[in-house]
Amino acid sequence: MSSDIQAIDQAVEAAACVAGFWAESNSAVRAALLRGLAAGLEQQQQALVAVADEETGLGTPRLNGEVARTAFQLRGFANEVEAGVPYGVVDDQAVAGAPPAGRPHLTRVQQPLGPVAMFSASNFPFAFSVLGGDTASALAAGCPVVVKAHSGHPRLSRAVHEVAQGVLAAQKLPAGLLGLVDGASRAGGVHLVAHPQIAAVAFTGSYQGGVALWKAANERPRPVPFFGELGSINPLVALPQILEHDGAALATTLAASITSGTGQFCTSPGVIVLLEHPASDQFIAQLSDALQPIKTHRMLTPGMRSGFDSGVAQLSKSASARALFMPLTDGDGPAPRLFEVDAQALISDAHLREEMFGPAAVVVKVRSVSQAIEVLHAIGGSLTATLWGLEQDCADNRALLRAARQIAGRVLFSGVPTGVAVTHAQQHGGPWPASTQPHTTSVGYAALARFVRPVALQDAPSWALTEGSLQP
Amino acid sequence: MSSDIQAIDQAVEAAACVAGFWAESNSAVRAALLRGLAAGLEQQQQALVAVADEETGLGTPRLNGEVARTAFQLRGFANEVEAGVPYGVVDDQAVAGAPPAGRPHLTRVQQPLGPVAMFSASNFPFAFSVLGGDTASALAAGCPVVVKAHSGHPRLSRAVHEVAQGVLAAQKLPAGLLGLVDGASRAGGVHLVAHPQIAAVAFTGSYQGGVALWKAANERPRPVPFFGELGSINPLVALPQILEHDGAALATTLAASITSGTGQFCTSPGVIVLLEHPASDQFIAQLSDALQPIKTHRMLTPGMRSGFDSGVAQLSKSASARALFMPLTDGDGPAPRLFEVDAQALISDAHLREEMFGPAAVVVKVRSVSQAIEVLHAIGGSLTATLWGLEQDCADNRALLRAARQIAGRVLFSGVPTGVAVTHAQQHGGPWPASTQPHTTSVGYAALARFVRPVALQDAPSWALTEGSLQP
Repeated sequence: MSSDIQAIDQAVEAAACVAGFWAESNSAVRAALLRGLAAGLEQQQQALVAVADEETGLGTPRLNGEVARTAFQLRGFANEVEAGVPYGVVDDQAVAGAPPAGRPHLTRVQQPLGPVAMFSASNFPFAFSVLGGDTASALAAGCPVVVKAHSGHPRLSRAVHEVAQGVLAAQKLPAGLLGLVDGASRAGGVHLVAHPQIAAVAFTGSYQGGVALWKAANERPRPVPFFGELGSINPLVALPQILEHDGAALATTLAASITSGTGQFCTSPGVIVLLEHPASDQFIAQLSDALQPIKTHRMLTPGMRSGFDSGVAQLSKSASARALFMPLTDGDGPAPRLFEVDAQALISDAHLREEMFGPAAVVVKVRSVSQAIEVLHAIGGSLTATLWGLEQDCADNRALLRAARQIAGRVLFSGVPTGVAVTHAQQHGGPWPASTQPHTTSVGYAALARFVRPVALQDAPSWALTEGSLQP
Repeated sequence: MSSDIQAIDQAVEAAACVAGFWAESNSAVRAALLRGLAAGLEQQQQALVAVADEETGLGTPRLNGEVARTAFQLRGFANEVEAGVPYGVVDDQAVAGAPPAGRPHLTRVQQPLGPVAMFSASNFPFAFSVLGGDTASALAAGCPVVVKAHSGHPRLSRAVHEVAQGVLAAQKLPAGLLGLVDGASRAGGVHLVAHPQIAAVAFTGSYQGGVALWKAANERPRPVPFFGELGSINPLVALPQILEHDGAALATTLAASITSGTGQFCTSPGVIVLLEHPASDQFIAQLSDALQPIKTHRMLTPGMRSGFDSGVAQLSKSASARALFMPLTDGDGPAPRLFEVDAQALISDAHLREEMFGPAAVVVKVRSVSQAIEVLHAIGGSLTATLWGLEQDCADNRALLRAARQIAGRVLFSGVPTGVAVTHAQQHGGPWPASTQPHTTSVGYAALARFVRPVALQDAPSWALTEGSLQP
């Protein structure tokens, strides 16, 4: 047995040992831990950001913003815990008489699932990593977490884990509540998912890697819930009228969104759908102009860079695609790319709809709103769909909204899809492959619900109904 | 292409054609349909029950009760619709300023998934069939349904479907809202699940059949949610003190639960866990006495009968099991059976924990509460776990409750698990294999949530936020 595998087993067993304790912990204990983790991150912020920048190249301003987001999120989940969300109860009093109207006393409570295996993402070394949204929501729900560190930022992962261990020790909580395993091997990931003590999996990353782990979760003797966010190409539809009025500003906004973080966001807008119209052609020119001077920083890993380059090369060779402008020479990161792809080709050829993870987008010109809708349906499951210029209530706009709601977890009427607010209404997840569990979200406070399941207690004695009594 | 496959394609395409209309239907239209279906069933009750009894042998009193339950359930979901449940909205107003506190306006709405493939169960020809809980909750959620009729009651399925078509026609609603396909072939089921226009699957039935369809759902190019309830052996733990006081009455209640409907309930108590104690031995004798005279009606299908007989034969041959009483000669249905299985053997041998679908149970004597807990963990995912005699708040009882909550969707402190009330707090589903989606329930009003998924609308214009405006 390799040392990686041994370390995974140890971390899972440590988590399993404390799962019962944490499932029954009260809101004060859980909230104090979440707030302590937020404060711990902030206390070490400067040092942690320096390590993160060395490993990821994402830059200090962005990384400081990400620490703020991560701490905000931890505190937000502390608020949820204090509001009683993970202990939510539905009480149906008994009704005398024969069924179906007659019934026993039923109390619906929430049961934490148990140890959660959490796979960090490369592109958010704080917010989707060791103390990111998955960990915060799982701890809030009453589940210990075993984090599989991302190979793109191993030192940062260890440093953040050390911060967390310091907080656990200071609060006299068991170390097993947050385990960390590293090693980049696929076999290690599968071993973690297949471990009989793992009760659920949270994953953010590539389609290929996510599907492999999802299969491993389904092939267990007892399959467990797999909450995977596997990518999205995030279509954006812009109608001519809004482009006529506001094309230049929108082009600047969109160019920034396409290239932000060197395009390494799961919400990066990848397909721009425009109607055949002079305003659309003008917008393509404006967008090309806006993209041309943008310099990107290096990509997160050499593997991602070569993945992007080969995606670009493949599209360049396609008979159905043409480059819309000649990019600058690459700098630290790849120069932005904009392609045009024939609408009918995009609809019929799945290869033309593959996510290019990096600073590139594809423009599709459609001859009608109904062809735009065909494009949306061909794209299918997406984290987001953006619809610009739908202010008026009319049949075409209703049809576009209907299609967008059918394929996406979030539908934007203004702005760009990059940037995902942490709120109660947020939904980050959509039909396959955006999410393996489209009923759930991985961003926002509803993310907590992934890690509890309902249990109905029938005719329970009072001691079993006082969740406050189930305390450490 | 066989006529079966053609019929499936036609039904799915008819459902897909009306999915958009139904997703946008208002609460008045949906509630009127659900109430109309309930009234339609009741109007034809006598004739339908006669057909059902011919096909299933379940008897008129039980079948009349089941029609009442089915109508109650349809009206209950109508109430849910009228209360706005499927249109539920969470609204987060915009907050000015930079993220993470600054945010856009986000409105979380619910999106019906689209056409649902529904696989009827054999054992509830009304309540888990054409107009049962899955259909009621899917229609309430805004999804058309294609029902795969169960081969155990094909004439009843067609008759109930005709009633439903009459109601749809009277309400000027499209026939495609409720399709019916029959034919018992496994290939037909897989074809239905794999159809690209199917957006979700609901299944109640055997582990083997359910797993085959669940795999088909996962092997689609775009997998869809599969809500399967695949069986459960429903452990019941009875502590000595309650048996001392009330053994005879409890034995009578339990014997009735084990044999009710010839044991063909997914909540039938299959494993009785007793502590080594004279009261337990006395209870075994009382239970045997109570079972001995019970006559069962014929099983639902010849296949189920031979499955039960071979399960009994296998257990009879096991070195770890012994029969606790010699049954009467079989009547129309098989005579009840009670076995004792060695606790350690049950813990280590999965074959001894397989569901025997029929009027049989296994008694396991344990030497301690902690061995009872080991038995519960070995059994794993269950629809129900019953704990008798836990009135006192003490460490042992807390440990038993903890284990029961970890494995089951419903924990009973009195009574028997057969009989599942339709309420808001109800949870019918548990960890694998009780349910493929343990966060969800297939009985009770929370079942509606299976067929909608959240969508966050960002900065939506007012016309897009008035669900009332999205009407037919």
